[in-house]
Amino acid sequence: MSSAGGFTAAANGASVPRMDMARLHALDASDPLARFRDAFALPEGVIYLAGNSLGPPPRAAAARLAEVVQAEWGGDLVAAWTRRGWIDAPARVGAKIAPLIGAGASEVIVADSTSVDLYKLLAAALRARPDRPTVLTVEGDFPTDLYVAGAAAGAVRRVSRRELIGALGPDVAVVLLTHAHYRSGEVYDMAAVNAAARAAGVWTLWDLSHSTGVVELDLGGSGADLAVGCGYKYLNGGPGAPAYLFVARRLQDHLSSPIAGWMGHAAPFDFSADYRPAEGVRRFLAGTPPILSLLALESAFVSMAGADPAAMAAKARRLGDLFLELAAELCPELEPACPGPGQQRGGHVAFRHPEAQPLSDALAARGLIGDVRAPDLLRFGLSPLYVRFEDVGRAAQLIRQALG
Amino acid sequence: MSSAGGFTAAANGASVPRMDMARLHALDASDPLARFRDAFALPEGVIYLAGNSLGPPPRAAAARLAEVVQAEWGGDLVAAWTRRGWIDAPARVGAKIAPLIGAGASEVIVADSTSVDLYKLLAAALRARPDRPTVLTVEGDFPTDLYVAGAAAGAVRRVSRRELIGALGPDVAVVLLTHAHYRSGEVYDMAAVNAAARAAGVWTLWDLSHSTGVVELDLGGSGADLAVGCGYKYLNGGPGAPAYLFVARRLQDHLSSPIAGWMGHAAPFDFSADYRPAEGVRRFLAGTPPILSLLALESAFVSMAGADPAAMAAKARRLGDLFLELAAELCPELEPACPGPGQQRGGHVAFRHPEAQPLSDALAARGLIGDVRAPDLLRFGLSPLYVRFEDVGRAAQLIRQALG
Repeated sequence: MSSAGGFTAAANGASVPRMDMARLHALDASDPLARFRDAFALPEGVIYLAGNSLGPPPRAAAARLAEVVQAEWGGDLVAAWTRRGWIDAPARVGAKIAPLIGAGASEVIVADSTSVDLYKLLAAALRARPDRPTVLTVEGDFPTDLYVAGAAAGAVRRVSRRELIGALGPDVAVVLLTHAHYRSGEVYDMAAVNAAARAAGVWTLWDLSHSTGVVELDLGGSGADLAVGCGYKYLNGGPGAPAYLFVARRLQDHLSSPIAGWMGHAAPFDFSADYRPAEGVRRFLAGTPPILSLLALESAFVSMAGADPAAMAAKARRLGDLFLELAAELCPELEPACPGPGQQRGGHVAFRHPEAQPLSDALAARGLIGDVRAPDLLRFGLSPLYVRFEDVGRAAQLIRQALG
Repeated sequence: MSSAGGFTAAANGASVPRMDMARLHALDASDPLARFRDAFALPEGVIYLAGNSLGPPPRAAAARLAEVVQAEWGGDLVAAWTRRGWIDAPARVGAKIAPLIGAGASEVIVADSTSVDLYKLLAAALRARPDRPTVLTVEGDFPTDLYVAGAAAGAVRRVSRRELIGALGPDVAVVLLTHAHYRSGEVYDMAAVNAAARAAGVWTLWDLSHSTGVVELDLGGSGADLAVGCGYKYLNGGPGAPAYLFVARRLQDHLSSPIAGWMGHAAPFDFSADYRPAEGVRRFLAGTPPILSLLALESAFVSMAGADPAAMAAKARRLGDLFLELAAELCPELEPACPGPGQQRGGHVAFRHPEAQPLSDALAARGLIGDVRAPDLLRFGLSPLYVRFEDVGRAAQLIRQALG
């Protein structure tokens, strides 16, 4: 790859910055999650720090998909829906996600995409609360959340973060928040927001896409009402893996999906003429789920079997803290643009640099994969399951080298 | 498997009915689609006549999925979205479906499930036509269509087939019809309905799930407005394969999706704060598509490359005609419950029998896979790409044997 924007694409003779690699190796040696790295198929020679966009393949995925296509689909054909348990997969995989978000197994189901799930929950909440026509959101939250809210609700009020609590008015049905910010990595204090919302009679709807797997979450304990999240970032479920949605048990019987598809029917195979919603969260299923993508997502739970959610969150934070410390030391040209060491943060760190894109391209050519959000934001995702402390050290060295 | 309901599960000594197999072999020998059978992975010794529920795996699927997981996802990671063309897959696969339904390439896109697509189009049509609040449907059409309409529209009018044309009133925004009936196989005269609807100012929305791949369709030529269909029946795209939707070119700029997800944005990767719908049918995308399931669907087009849609429809009809003729001759206990020989029909034949389920179980034990719709309907799907005339003859013999 050629040089871009003044950055050299390959090692250019600039000396490798000195670093106490022994300290990083010691951190890896004592890392209780170190063994999970082998469960992912990462290319040789690549430091992959874009798992906040798309996680890498769990090693279990390829074999599982081959089995599903050849033995299950090819062997049992249509009977596989029951014989191989496909029909139960949305609830089964939802129950596997539940411990990562502090939910009960019967409060989570895998269905559709994050955008569609968000729409279903927003529309259901608005329908259940006709005296509260407004959705409250925060300016700068994930764009698709704002788009979906804009089209789903008659009234959307966008406020700044600091105005949020004061805006929880009597016209608000639900407050929709991106829990960990996709640019800054800032994280809301979920318990505090839930408490304030509840005091104002407002329901909370959390988008956990950038949180699940890297931040400790306790939807149940903190009194969250609704949530959605994607399967393809820190859950490593594959490109466009189905999303999940959470409905607190106490609300399940009071909400109905605007998309009354047959999979959410109490008895889908009765083919009755009239719709009767399923008990519980299953009523938020719509059409037939994409089984291949759904079972690939399930295979990711084979690769992370036994990983403790608290340990995952703790390691993600330590990786981020280390990254920020080393960058401050070695790469002062990068302006930190995320919560600092010791602060609560999503799974990535972010920096501003005026030539973010050419710098990111130069890093990719050296085997360090991060990404850029226009115009000037560099992001590095730090998945606790396969990123090593050593990788963070090498990443800082590579950035230093690329900066010249 | 043990005997069930009086039917013996295995050959019971009843003589195999005589049949002119040479005639059937001659039909297979002159079948222009015969070569496509080898493109599907069918289990040995099974006659698979449930492709109207779930098509079998295209042989291309297993290798393609292995490539996608290992080389694309595993090799290029997040860069595969552009480098491997994932981002274009919804439009690319839509363009491959278009010739099967008589649509232009820019009128079809693959997205979500049939239920979700149906909801999006119904809600869009109702929003575009505020002076016409009613959705018209026909009693007995596919249940999920009726459920989705019921939840999406303020007013749904269900009429009988014979009342349909007369019910196209000035309050009707859209008439939603299951083109080929999932039980009876009856098919609407699409051109006649489109013409009558147009005269009444009503838009048509066709569910093509049981038609595409087995009935000649000409959405463009017949003046259809909107359509949806699933990818997993006669398209053989895999369990829960993503669905497709059609919006006639002339309507595309006048409709907007109720689910304004980022993939339907004019510039999804600008992450702008406000929603601006994409040009054309792409605005009906919502969230990130399930790439593994979507590319498995695409691989089905490798297995059917070069198959002429008119030849597929002609063969499906001849297979059905033959099945009905042989059943009338050999199995008079079966009461035909679908359009007769020579008549227009979907891709399956249907019969009533008081012990349909035990009979179907007995057939399955003999290697003949059909299915049952309660209480008494046996269905046999006749996909033209892998079912042989010989298979129809053997199926009739097996039914005769099982009946005793």
